[in-house]
Amino acid sequence: MLTVVKIGGKILEDAQAQKEFCTQFAQIPSPKILIHGGGRTATTIAEKLGVETQMIEGRRVTSTEMLEVAVMVYAGLTNKSIVANLQALKCQAIGLCGADLDLIRAEKRPTEATNYGWVGDVKKVNAQALQSLLNLGSTPVIAPLTHDGKGQLLNTNADTIASEIASSLTDYEEVRLIFVFEKKGVLENIEDENSYFETLSYAQYQAQKQAGSIHEGMIPKLDNGFATLQKGVKEVIIGQLPKDNDIEKMIGTRLELSV
Amino acid sequence: MLTVVKIGGKILEDAQAQKEFCTQFAQIPSPKILIHGGGRTATTIAEKLGVETQMIEGRRVTSTEMLEVAVMVYAGLTNKSIVANLQALKCQAIGLCGADLDLIRAEKRPTEATNYGWVGDVKKVNAQALQSLLNLGSTPVIAPLTHDGKGQLLNTNADTIASEIASSLTDYEEVRLIFVFEKKGVLENIEDENSYFETLSYAQYQAQKQAGSIHEGMIPKLDNGFATLQKGVKEVIIGQLPKDNDIEKMIGTRLELSV
Repeated sequence: MLTVVKIGGKILEDAQAQKEFCTQFAQIPSPKILIHGGGRTATTIAEKLGVETQMIEGRRVTSTEMLEVAVMVYAGLTNKSIVANLQALKCQAIGLCGADLDLIRAEKRPTEATNYGWVGDVKKVNAQALQSLLNLGSTPVIAPLTHDGKGQLLNTNADTIASEIASSLTDYEEVRLIFVFEKKGVLENIEDENSYFETLSYAQYQAQKQAGSIHEGMIPKLDNGFATLQKGVKEVIIGQLPKDNDIEKMIGTRLELSV
Repeated sequence: MLTVVKIGGKILEDAQAQKEFCTQFAQIPSPKILIHGGGRTATTIAEKLGVETQMIEGRRVTSTEMLEVAVMVYAGLTNKSIVANLQALKCQAIGLCGADLDLIRAEKRPTEATNYGWVGDVKKVNAQALQSLLNLGSTPVIAPLTHDGKGQLLNTNADTIASEIASSLTDYEEVRLIFVFEKKGVLENIEDENSYFETLSYAQYQAQKQAGSIHEGMIPKLDNGFATLQKGVKEVIIGQLPKDNDIEKMIGTRLELSV
């Protein structure tokens, strides 16, 4: 079973939390792939460099200058820091972005409706190249950047990249996708940390969504997760990595197409 | 024959010059490896971020903040920009630093004499991992950063990395090392662009050095080049990549252990 783990930016911003995460991740049996988000470091660096952060409807616009910052922070600082930490734990990490080995080909998002700048929508994952790296015994660590095949790097949502990578590899082996999350899982009651669903079927999700009990911010992540299951990924879990290496016992919400 | 190419920072700073270089590099028959330097972009970014560039005897001191800038610029901006350009030319580039796949293990330089900060001296190249990547048909593009195996990234001279990589791979195949240079080669007379040596033997070099006709700045590069020949690298050339793909006809100075 291949384990694909997506981790958000927040954990990565704190050096100590990043090390703890790496210790947990290193214990997951191989083969495995890590996809990391960006986080606020890019915003901080952009501010220091005098690059303005533009937002449209809560989404960041990737200007040319902001793309440079994203490449520096995601593919440079964050990616290599994780790799160095994993290497110290004897995990044979290899830090990459979507341009490397043509791993993730994307298309610049059309600008008719809204111009998000240098943002890419995934067109094709080079699953064969990823599989070759896994066969070498290495652990790809992937920054959320793609390319258009014509020399242009593009900014792409890390959740999307994780799902696309996970589903592209189902031809080779069984795949489990884990979205590491600050909560214990998808909460039924946002006020109660312990109210997480251990499992959430698609039917349940639809009912909960209609009842308004799913937090708005979770909806794209859950839609994405269920779509990934539909594409043949065996398990999608939203939660926290276990302290020991037993993923079967990890705390979180397991998505299920049907109960 | 494996071709290892080292390119300095200057060419990389200009987008057009970088593209032209990539076009030439892409035409070199595989297997090949590119090692790139840092260049002044790091200094520019550091200035904008308010990170001071400290120099001791003409050498940059790598403070914690400067190391972060180096990682962002070398492993992020410069490395991924080259990779995206090479991918657009159908060259299956994979951008890495010395921490990835434990490619280049280094040791922090001792601070007794002078404290250069987070600078690493190369201890071991993972030639087997590089060879595996070459066997996949990929072209490693390597940023001048190493790691200590304990989670610490280190700044390392790109010429040294190129030499260490070239000599580490001689067990697998014949290796040619090219230092791409702004001049046509090693000049006998620095005032005359066309006065380059077509070949330079170690004996000639010693004689020219004593006569004071070798430019001071070239001496570490040449010492490095001759040492690399002694370690079994077949050819070391300092010069310019050819416009067509015929390396045999490239303009430059070929170093020779003896004439």
